[in-house]
Amino acid sequence: MEAERTLREEDLTRLGELAAQLRVDSIRCSTRAGSGHPTSSLSAADLLAVLMSRHLRYDWAEPRGRANDHLILSKGHASPLLYAVFKAAGAITDEELVETYRQFGSRLQGHPTPVLPWVDVATGSLGQGLPVGVGIALAGRYLDRLPFRVWVLCGDSEMAEGSIWEALDKAGHYGLHNLTAIVDVNRFGQRGPTELEWDLDTYRRRVEAFGCQALVVDGHDLVAVDEALGRARQATGPTVVLARTVKGRGVPEIENQPGWHGKQLEPEMAERAVDALGGVRQTRVTTPRPEPAPSAAARPPGQPPVLPRYDKGAKVATRNAYGDALRALGSRTDVVVLDGEVSDSTRADRFAEAHPDRYFEMFISEQQMVAAAVGLQVRGYRPFASTFAAFFSRAYDFVRMAAVSQADIALVGSHAGVEIGADGPSQMGLEDLAAMRAVHGSTVLYPSDAVSCAALVAQMPDRKGVNYLRTTRGGYPVLYDNDDTFPVGGSKVLRGGGDDHVALIGAGVTVHNCLAAADELAREGINARVVDLYSVKPLDRQRVLDAARDTGGRLVVVEDHHPEGGLGSAVLESMADVAEPVRVAHLAVRKLPTSGKPTELMDAAGIGVSAIVAAARASVPQRG
Amino acid sequence: MEAERTLREEDLTRLGELAAQLRVDSIRCSTRAGSGHPTSSLSAADLLAVLMSRHLRYDWAEPRGRANDHLILSKGHASPLLYAVFKAAGAITDEELVETYRQFGSRLQGHPTPVLPWVDVATGSLGQGLPVGVGIALAGRYLDRLPFRVWVLCGDSEMAEGSIWEALDKAGHYGLHNLTAIVDVNRFGQRGPTELEWDLDTYRRRVEAFGCQALVVDGHDLVAVDEALGRARQATGPTVVLARTVKGRGVPEIENQPGWHGKQLEPEMAERAVDALGGVRQTRVTTPRPEPAPSAAARPPGQPPVLPRYDKGAKVATRNAYGDALRALGSRTDVVVLDGEVSDSTRADRFAEAHPDRYFEMFISEQQMVAAAVGLQVRGYRPFASTFAAFFSRAYDFVRMAAVSQADIALVGSHAGVEIGADGPSQMGLEDLAAMRAVHGSTVLYPSDAVSCAALVAQMPDRKGVNYLRTTRGGYPVLYDNDDTFPVGGSKVLRGGGDDHVALIGAGVTVHNCLAAADELAREGINARVVDLYSVKPLDRQRVLDAARDTGGRLVVVEDHHPEGGLGSAVLESMADVAEPVRVAHLAVRKLPTSGKPTELMDAAGIGVSAIVAAARASVPQRG
Repeated sequence: MEAERTLREEDLTRLGELAAQLRVDSIRCSTRAGSGHPTSSLSAADLLAVLMSRHLRYDWAEPRGRANDHLILSKGHASPLLYAVFKAAGAITDEELVETYRQFGSRLQGHPTPVLPWVDVATGSLGQGLPVGVGIALAGRYLDRLPFRVWVLCGDSEMAEGSIWEALDKAGHYGLHNLTAIVDVNRFGQRGPTELEWDLDTYRRRVEAFGCQALVVDGHDLVAVDEALGRARQATGPTVVLARTVKGRGVPEIENQPGWHGKQLEPEMAERAVDALGGVRQTRVTTPRPEPAPSAAARPPGQPPVLPRYDKGAKVATRNAYGDALRALGSRTDVVVLDGEVSDSTRADRFAEAHPDRYFEMFISEQQMVAAAVGLQVRGYRPFASTFAAFFSRAYDFVRMAAVSQADIALVGSHAGVEIGADGPSQMGLEDLAAMRAVHGSTVLYPSDAVSCAALVAQMPDRKGVNYLRTTRGGYPVLYDNDDTFPVGGSKVLRGGGDDHVALIGAGVTVHNCLAAADELAREGINARVVDLYSVKPLDRQRVLDAARDTGGRLVVVEDHHPEGGLGSAVLESMADVAEPVRVAHLAVRKLPTSGKPTELMDAAGIGVSAIVAAARASVPQRG
Repeated sequence: MEAERTLREEDLTRLGELAAQLRVDSIRCSTRAGSGHPTSSLSAADLLAVLMSRHLRYDWAEPRGRANDHLILSKGHASPLLYAVFKAAGAITDEELVETYRQFGSRLQGHPTPVLPWVDVATGSLGQGLPVGVGIALAGRYLDRLPFRVWVLCGDSEMAEGSIWEALDKAGHYGLHNLTAIVDVNRFGQRGPTELEWDLDTYRRRVEAFGCQALVVDGHDLVAVDEALGRARQATGPTVVLARTVKGRGVPEIENQPGWHGKQLEPEMAERAVDALGGVRQTRVTTPRPEPAPSAAARPPGQPPVLPRYDKGAKVATRNAYGDALRALGSRTDVVVLDGEVSDSTRADRFAEAHPDRYFEMFISEQQMVAAAVGLQVRGYRPFASTFAAFFSRAYDFVRMAAVSQADIALVGSHAGVEIGADGPSQMGLEDLAAMRAVHGSTVLYPSDAVSCAALVAQMPDRKGVNYLRTTRGGYPVLYDNDDTFPVGGSKVLRGGGDDHVALIGAGVTVHNCLAAADELAREGINARVVDLYSVKPLDRQRVLDAARDTGGRLVVVEDHHPEGGLGSAVLESMADVAEPVRVAHLAVRKLPTSGKPTELMDAAGIGVSAIVAAARASVPQRG
């Protein structure tokens, strides 16, 4: 190892040549595309030249190999540099790089996405790559127990994001010696100097205070960079290489100049720059090979879960059913759980007690929690992350990006809606259905009872994309038999089913209000169908159409959520192109809630039993 | 001042009595409510007893007085303590405190909200009070230039939120000597020990590295606390009092015990505890008086803005119109602007150049940016905050809480939708309409041209609540006359208006696609009405109903947004209870986008001209 770390003269020449090639290619592809971030690539070219040549253990022919190191471009806009690295590694051709970068139909997009097999996660929303790297490193240290490393290239601008400090804090807390952040401190953000510019000492003090080892280097001194990366590989804790660099390095006319962020060089200038850098090269680099690792199949899969069973009619909170189902799912060795310091409320603590080795406490850092879930699924795990439904709003950008990353994750939000009672509106998830539905490819579930909740939770680990399930704080009667099935995209009819006068459509807690309303309406001679739309996305469209047809188009939709974008919208969207007239009475939380008891708050919001009865009654023609 | 800061024996006795009263009242009200967080209140009782008696300059009779200090309970769950302070100050009665806390209809909610005149902003989503405090302190130091101070009581659990570090970073950067965070380090979070427990030294190093002065004290030593708060008042930069405290302090049977977060004492235990603390008291405290300050009227209001004018047909990006209008609005001295390091893209730089004294660069910290806007409006300013539409998702919890705070803020998101082109999906705002619409009391605007954009931007500072406007990256023709009016809640008909065959409904960039489609349809003999729904929320329902009636229910809604919760949903929600049959063809971004040119991406998403033409054609019955 020692010998390997001593750079000889010919190594240096070779590295310098490679760095020049990375610069040349970054310029060429962005100039050809007519857009992109060459100067942000130029500053980090020396860093990645050294990394890929001497420290990144990676088998380019087997990008999903379990022994590979991981390289994450947290500063996703420097995609020209990353793609130039891919070319130098022989993973893509020069032609693909230069001819297709940023073009429609190309896999070389403006910011990297996992459409490329060598890219673990999409980046481009700054401050996300490092938190995801923490998740991958958690897997490496605590689950896989493999010697791969996680290398994350960060920009200096993104160090202003709080999520970076959540990540370094957790890296320190969990002792992630297998994680190295390389910060390209080139002093310039998009619109001018960064907050700290070249104040490397302040960066150093922050990084150290957050429990990581800082290694300050000149990011253009190949020997110093090599030494720092070598030290990072030997470190006993997480490392942050703080590299002082020059934006636009290698093209003197734009080096260290403001106004050059996100701008390609015009063709003539590009030609001059490429010439000055020694012209176009087609050097192919061999990166260090990873140590052989056992295949994923070596991990015993565990036992099939035995789901909890509940007595019909017993009052059980769906959050309890989540905890019970989660604990049962723990029999699968690929299921891991994260929580944001509220596991006693979400009931994730039931998993943590049974499977402490696969539970990671993220404390109150919801962004890091979701990012860690994304990182864990990169390594093949099926992560669940839970907090209050309201607090997933803290991580919404991470959820959005998880979808772009095509990540398969399960998110469970408790304490949804005004039903939570006395804690008041700050704790009430009232926007979560809208926000989660709007995420590309997402699944949104909202079970009304413990049986359906457990059945849906059990399906989440095997589903693609972002899967969100909403649980309720209070205990409500178990409605279903333990052997009932609850396919995603399905629904249940709990009352009626023939020529009903009106259909009451709810999900979660409002299903119980609909049932009570149906009982009351029955006493008035109004037959109300009650539909449980536990699958908010995808929605059981046929069930809604049937209800509309059978009732003459009289629907009452009730949700413990703001009126925009939630269950009501989902129902209306599903009927957008239906020719028959349908009248939907849409009951939702339209006023700012307060504290109070659950029933008081649901009544005040107009989603309680009496409001449903009134809406149903109003929809049905007066009878003699 | 020196004399004032020396605590005499009788002062200490008095403070001890007050602290005991605050503890007793925290216990009484939560026990009576049957829920709440007494132990989190007990740990901080000594801190607030000293603060309110000797350092908080506040006129309780005039809570909106401009000279008052600000007290923010960032650890909002300790509301029993805050309300006990209000009682000790004579602001509320003992009866209100004990009889109404957490009850339905009470203003003493589970977490504080500005329903109470002494509360600036709602708290309860942890890690938000301090960032808001930064905004208030920015106003004090740079705009009001008044000597008031901002005191923020933080919990230790919330120090794990990245937003806290965004806040301290900005406090340091802007030299906010008028800001003091008091951290109640009681070692326990909700579900057990915090990450750092009583590691005050690590907290100290982090705080100092982020540019603030740390003052470490025993939070139960009244003399030490008094001295620290006195030093904070004299400091030349932001201060963080790190107070080592004991959770449950004052009730020996639960002191420093896990399992007591968020639990009231049962009546018998509460009675014992109150007795041990010396029983119920009705002590009234006189807090220091603020120095007199000039009234807000003393600030010259400035000039009415002269909005930019544009030539019809000229291609102008709406983001440019935002920048132009913003610069014009700068003639009003109450308009202030924040941006997240992308002002050259959002065009907020046009304001920054003209009015640098009222522009605050937040660098890449969107959470802090929105929080600062909330803080600035507490002081009567009309803040605008802008970044890419996609990146407001980073601050979604802050936007949600701004609504609970009844804050009046303007948020402007640029680079919306697939229209942005080559940068790819990480930079595309495709969930923002859904997310922003779901916020309580919000306004959501999406202008199609420069004239309407400027007119809408000009209305934003005078509107209540969260106001969101979405701008487009590319330049599109100016559609309207400079003297047209664009009321919020309105819309425009750009083509047709009589017995049209079909109505094409768009907003923002898709209006232009609808116009081109209408031209094409006209050549086929299909008369298409084109409706510009620039006000997505509130929506011009009547315009939609008219279009449905006039066209026989044939609507095509086109949006550069995911299909859930956006413009299409808004249109469908508005017609929920309409009896006539309406068929809406809903064109939206249903696949994960890539890089490409704007027209390529809109066509690929099925929201381009040809898709609109096809949808319209399909909706119109075949004619002979």
